[in-house]
Amino acid sequence: MATQALASWALDLQYSNLTSSVVDAAVKSVYNWAGCAIGGYAQSAPVIAQTTMGGAFGGPGTSSILAANDSGLVDAQVAALVNGIASHIDDYDDTHLETIIHPAGPIASALLAVSEWQGPVSGEEFLTAFVAGVEAECKLGLAVYPQHYDVGWHITSTTGSIGASVAISKLLKLDLPQTRQAIGIASTQVVGMQEFFGSDTKSFHIGRAAQSGMMAALLAQNGYTSSLSALEAKYGWSHVVSTRENLTETFATLGKTWEIEKNTFKPFPCGIVIHPTIDACIRLRTQAMDRGLDINTIQSVNARVNPYVITLTGKTNPQTGLEAKFSVYHAAAVGLLFGKATPTEFTDEIVLNQTVIDMRKRVDTTEDESVPKAEVYLSAIFEDGTNLTEHVEHAIGSIENPLSVEQLRTKFLDQTSRVIGATRAQQAYDAFLGIANVSDVAAVRSAFASNATSDAGARPAP
Amino acid sequence: MATQALASWALDLQYSNLTSSVVDAAVKSVYNWAGCAIGGYAQSAPVIAQTTMGGAFGGPGTSSILAANDSGLVDAQVAALVNGIASHIDDYDDTHLETIIHPAGPIASALLAVSEWQGPVSGEEFLTAFVAGVEAECKLGLAVYPQHYDVGWHITSTTGSIGASVAISKLLKLDLPQTRQAIGIASTQVVGMQEFFGSDTKSFHIGRAAQSGMMAALLAQNGYTSSLSALEAKYGWSHVVSTRENLTETFATLGKTWEIEKNTFKPFPCGIVIHPTIDACIRLRTQAMDRGLDINTIQSVNARVNPYVITLTGKTNPQTGLEAKFSVYHAAAVGLLFGKATPTEFTDEIVLNQTVIDMRKRVDTTEDESVPKAEVYLSAIFEDGTNLTEHVEHAIGSIENPLSVEQLRTKFLDQTSRVIGATRAQQAYDAFLGIANVSDVAAVRSAFASNATSDAGARPAP
Repeated sequence: MATQALASWALDLQYSNLTSSVVDAAVKSVYNWAGCAIGGYAQSAPVIAQTTMGGAFGGPGTSSILAANDSGLVDAQVAALVNGIASHIDDYDDTHLETIIHPAGPIASALLAVSEWQGPVSGEEFLTAFVAGVEAECKLGLAVYPQHYDVGWHITSTTGSIGASVAISKLLKLDLPQTRQAIGIASTQVVGMQEFFGSDTKSFHIGRAAQSGMMAALLAQNGYTSSLSALEAKYGWSHVVSTRENLTETFATLGKTWEIEKNTFKPFPCGIVIHPTIDACIRLRTQAMDRGLDINTIQSVNARVNPYVITLTGKTNPQTGLEAKFSVYHAAAVGLLFGKATPTEFTDEIVLNQTVIDMRKRVDTTEDESVPKAEVYLSAIFEDGTNLTEHVEHAIGSIENPLSVEQLRTKFLDQTSRVIGATRAQQAYDAFLGIANVSDVAAVRSAFASNATSDAGARPAP
Repeated sequence: MATQALASWALDLQYSNLTSSVVDAAVKSVYNWAGCAIGGYAQSAPVIAQTTMGGAFGGPGTSSILAANDSGLVDAQVAALVNGIASHIDDYDDTHLETIIHPAGPIASALLAVSEWQGPVSGEEFLTAFVAGVEAECKLGLAVYPQHYDVGWHITSTTGSIGASVAISKLLKLDLPQTRQAIGIASTQVVGMQEFFGSDTKSFHIGRAAQSGMMAALLAQNGYTSSLSALEAKYGWSHVVSTRENLTETFATLGKTWEIEKNTFKPFPCGIVIHPTIDACIRLRTQAMDRGLDINTIQSVNARVNPYVITLTGKTNPQTGLEAKFSVYHAAAVGLLFGKATPTEFTDEIVLNQTVIDMRKRVDTTEDESVPKAEVYLSAIFEDGTNLTEHVEHAIGSIENPLSVEQLRTKFLDQTSRVIGATRAQQAYDAFLGIANVSDVAAVRSAFASNATSDAGARPAP
């Protein structure tokens, strides 16, 4: 009865059930998602998807692509696809560390699109549905992790379509049988494998999961039948996609342990397993500067890491910004050279920069099973013989060392200003920060409408 | 290099490479698909999908839903979805028996939609792309069958999206790297599990696979990146969805063994594993009539079958026509009572008919591992004590006992007349039969345009 348990819990959830800590985590998750969806629009992937699917296949415009001009409203399916892709393309979004799910993308991309289309939807309704969707996807992830992940599935999208179906079912006030049918239609669409990490298709997974979950809820609302026990049935989701599941046990914690409270936000736009190494490189750079050492005189750097880090991010010679997001070597090099790793340090241009390439070649790794996945031991030898070391136990952005509200704000403004200019970026930040209080979430988007300001820094929409 | 091998073979394929036997199999596969796509439109599933996805999310109309009015052109994505669903909803389509793939649905639904949109596409181009797509999906199936199927995947759609991406890549003359990228984008969208057999979602799989494969080719054409080795990579398609694969070996047979020549066409609109039982019931009915026995005096019927038949079609008490397609008990009952099993015998009305229910209750099964999956031993005891038996070794519709051209024609006309009337049904049959010779496949649809005739038997389009 796992499918029923999930649907029933989600439909019963009220805004008044959410503690202030849960609401706070939800609001942060939503504005961090929005910042990424705006910032990521600078990449080509969301624009290609918009051109391909919004052109010949787009219905009447009802919903916004967050970074596009306001005149560019698209249908809710296209909006969910494009915002979903944009929110993940920089690998800068959020992470539920126990499952490596990036929770907000599939859920928020579907929810905002439907809210604008079918609204008015209040901020409280939006956040309640968002929390329901995030809890659904993370609990599903917990029920099948790590077996499901280890075989190669991209767990964010494989659970995300189901989470999105739960969120949209709740938003549209579907009844219990309809919601169970929606979960079924979503669960049979399993999108996302790890082979596509480092390519445009990694973020396609998130947009497609948002589309699939939304579509599932709409089909179920119109009477399309699937299965009432899709998650637990012998030939249903959990058994087909994993060699282990404990749905019943995991769902029993719904509303008791809140997964969204464990959501973390990425300080660096790349695979999360590299974050400790970047953090260590930035610290080591500071240490070198304090000693008056020129960072360019580094002879060799060694990062001792869990083998898992190399499996996921072992690209030694990336050729594009997207590939570099899965190169611990590139990430270490920019951390050392620039003392930061923002979207600017993961452009194609920087990846092909000779100084960066030279530094990348000096970075070596040692695989060590005894090093926890979230830690790194870094050691650098300089030309003068100096040996500097760093050990990072809890990297910036981890649950033990989270980004502060101020750091989240800086991250939001930095990445969005590059795309919509500083004035609109500030308007967007303020609007999303106040999402809990609006009577219609469509007003959030209007608050940073492009016609409300003329901003020289804004990138023209395609 | 499996992905490259497949893409390269498909792009090189020419109409002149196709033997007359291959062309004949392709034409039969296409018109049998078209008949099912027209006949299946009498069900609610394709209509719900059309309403849900064609309404708010439909772009400009370019492509036809085969059974709808001509004024109802929709965008190519919606057409692929709706025709795909309609072509499979009756479980009346085609079967590649070695893999239980129903090959035509995902491929033809995508191809016709794109041909009408981007054409003119000649009949020869259409059939060549169709064969490329069918070979791709069936070879993929062979490479992972039965492990992939046994875990619960619906193999028609899991291979179908990739087959459709190959077919559309070829139709649109993508280059080799683009086609490999398209295969990647298609392969990461794994739709379809067996839990949904007996519900609307089973045929959703086929429509969604058609959409996904088409979308993959269009995204790749516009420069969207995925992976050049998606099928064989460690965390790519074959390893993620199956515990066994032999892609290299299987792809080496491309163009040598033609899978389309092994395609078979269903004589009965239901799960293929029940076909021997229906065949046996119809024969037993004839035997009884020859002896002057009233079929209603049957006391009990036993079908000794492979356990697999019960696993897939063991529903003892179906409540809808769709469920009855997976009930060996219902299928046996209608075979005995009516001497036939067409879409009419799988309506909700017949499923709830008391005479049918009474006969269903008299049908029993024995699971016997020693009985091959394609065979049945049937035994019936009548009230007067007579015991009649039948053993079916090769059921009607099997590769050893295929439907004749005349039987395929009858099947086409019977199922399409119910929906578009007898006159248009005949026009449609003639047009699809001649598809190899047209300079623009859009002409096939025009040949049975609803405004070309006024046919009292036609079902009004929604």
